[in-house]
Amino acid sequence: MTSHEFYMNLALENARAMKGQTDPNPLVGSVIVNENRIVGIGTHLKAGEPHAEVHAIRMAGEKAKGGTIYVTLEPCSHYGRTGPCAMAIVEAGLQKVVIATLDPNPIVAGNGVKILEDAGIEVVVGVMEEESRKMNEVFNKFIVEQQPFMTMKAGSTLDGKIATHTADSKWITSAEAREDVHHLRNEHMGILVGVNTVIEDNPELTTRIPNGRNPIRIILDSTLRIPMDSKVVTDGQAATWIFTAQTYDQKAKDELEKRGISIYHTSGITHVDPKDVVRILGENQVSSVLIEGGGTIHAAFLENQLVDKVEIYIAPKLVGGTQAPTFLEGAGVNLMQNAVDLENLQITQIGKDFKFTGYPKYKRELD
Amino acid sequence: MTSHEFYMNLALENARAMKGQTDPNPLVGSVIVNENRIVGIGTHLKAGEPHAEVHAIRMAGEKAKGGTIYVTLEPCSHYGRTGPCAMAIVEAGLQKVVIATLDPNPIVAGNGVKILEDAGIEVVVGVMEEESRKMNEVFNKFIVEQQPFMTMKAGSTLDGKIATHTADSKWITSAEAREDVHHLRNEHMGILVGVNTVIEDNPELTTRIPNGRNPIRIILDSTLRIPMDSKVVTDGQAATWIFTAQTYDQKAKDELEKRGISIYHTSGITHVDPKDVVRILGENQVSSVLIEGGGTIHAAFLENQLVDKVEIYIAPKLVGGTQAPTFLEGAGVNLMQNAVDLENLQITQIGKDFKFTGYPKYKRELD
Repeated sequence: MTSHEFYMNLALENARAMKGQTDPNPLVGSVIVNENRIVGIGTHLKAGEPHAEVHAIRMAGEKAKGGTIYVTLEPCSHYGRTGPCAMAIVEAGLQKVVIATLDPNPIVAGNGVKILEDAGIEVVVGVMEEESRKMNEVFNKFIVEQQPFMTMKAGSTLDGKIATHTADSKWITSAEAREDVHHLRNEHMGILVGVNTVIEDNPELTTRIPNGRNPIRIILDSTLRIPMDSKVVTDGQAATWIFTAQTYDQKAKDELEKRGISIYHTSGITHVDPKDVVRILGENQVSSVLIEGGGTIHAAFLENQLVDKVEIYIAPKLVGGTQAPTFLEGAGVNLMQNAVDLENLQITQIGKDFKFTGYPKYKRELD
Repeated sequence: MTSHEFYMNLALENARAMKGQTDPNPLVGSVIVNENRIVGIGTHLKAGEPHAEVHAIRMAGEKAKGGTIYVTLEPCSHYGRTGPCAMAIVEAGLQKVVIATLDPNPIVAGNGVKILEDAGIEVVVGVMEEESRKMNEVFNKFIVEQQPFMTMKAGSTLDGKIATHTADSKWITSAEAREDVHHLRNEHMGILVGVNTVIEDNPELTTRIPNGRNPIRIILDSTLRIPMDSKVVTDGQAATWIFTAQTYDQKAKDELEKRGISIYHTSGITHVDPKDVVRILGENQVSSVLIEGGGTIHAAFLENQLVDKVEIYIAPKLVGGTQAPTFLEGAGVNLMQNAVDLENLQITQIGKDFKFTGYPKYKRELD
């Protein structure tokens, strides 16, 4: 590890620790070094509060002058509440700026660097770039496409099943894996299920860890069949948004809205259009969604190439059953060569289970 | 690693290298040490040839006297072609015997040790016992139960599918994983498939690696629908044994037997009885079988608690499809708590794929 990497790694660690509390802003960390000593650290804590560089500069005070600042994301060039960070760096008298990655938005990428270089500051770009980009994969998509980063989650037996043929599913994975899912929920702005899950399991869809943040509960319900006494309608623990097709029940809609539930209509005639769901969520500033569907919901999003990441918890057990549901149903691809490959796959052991994390690579329009 | 473990490990390595060529005998290795120098090594090469201890004693010659012999399996006490190995050890003048594991057959276990101790030789049992037992898991079952060790093998997508909904399955796993399967075939005495696999794919079911040994091709075919021009009937590359139900086609039977195919009848009326298959194979000295079935064949053996080990190759890809077959069909268990857990699970990366190796733990009669 070079010294550049050492300091950038510290900046990344501080940035990552804020995961889930900066939405819709990215995670950013910063370190200031002067004469081989760290004189300031900073991280972005919350949208609306100072950027990482500003915190680090404040901590460094006079010692920022002549120093080097490490920052995991290109300093901003826009005038927000506090003026652009690039200007703050110039004003603090820093001599060198080491950046992990440029602004993900191609329209503004490089603008911060230009301000710095125009002021005669030496700029290095690309130190631990991959780590920084991955840390903000949600933000990077949202800022460019204005659509949420969609993660498909499933807990499955080794033979792909999410329930037995009698629909029994308690429990597939270990307590450790189920707790890990609550951490996932904590990191997402929305959690998405189909109405059948609500009807069958009446889940709370909340984050059951200490200090957990509850995501918005997003329910796909074409006709508004959702029971009025279901927990997501009545418990008030988190916002509930329901997406319908065109053929919804107007009376149910009135009733739900009276209870504070938001209803959104998609262009699907009999089924909710998943593309509309993603678009509408983006318009409402939802930057990340965990899809905890059954196999039909998963297939609807995957077949529309709307899944950005998958998190599959595999329990080392077998249930069998031609009629037992798998975590990916729908029509499926016609040919094995059109299967959706998962890239950058990571496997993590969690309790007795194995979490497969990967990124779908869509080869072509699915057949 | 103690010095006992060091020498036993060498004996195990030499034993393991013979995998597939000692059937129906176990793998056994031996090392003789005298005054801190290895003076002989031996391994069992082939049924009917000398046991490992005899090879090691011959190599050591006069230097065996006063030495210590390491052997991965309790020296035999029975009079075979060459007299019991325990006697050979006594006659060679060895002073100490270190054994990994006793004879797996509880009826004779300890008899070899008794001969040695009665002759005043010091005996140590249990050095690297677990490794030795696992190395001979096939033999250990066969010698005790007279039934083959059954390994279920599948190549699957991450969502449990072994083909798309159009029955396309080429290829699920990588070339590296497919080559690994040929090594598995090489290590088994039999390979078992259903007749549908023969009808649909017309496979050779041979071992396509250099110096590969072809297993017996075992086909489950209730009524003898197998095409007379299929490769397993015509190519003569390996023996082919077909198992039927009671309702088989007598004309087809005559025709197949004329071509040198062996036909065995099970007690099932319309479907082949898997318990009978395992029993008949055992009676015919088949000690290990690789089940390369589809999901129906796999379920038939697993639901009858006849699977001893599973080897599942998981490709990091998704195909989806309610109608796409999984590697475990049948009825399946009713309740998730009755799922068959896999114990001693190992995951090995092979090319882009992951091999899950485990041992089913049957909790109760499956419901």
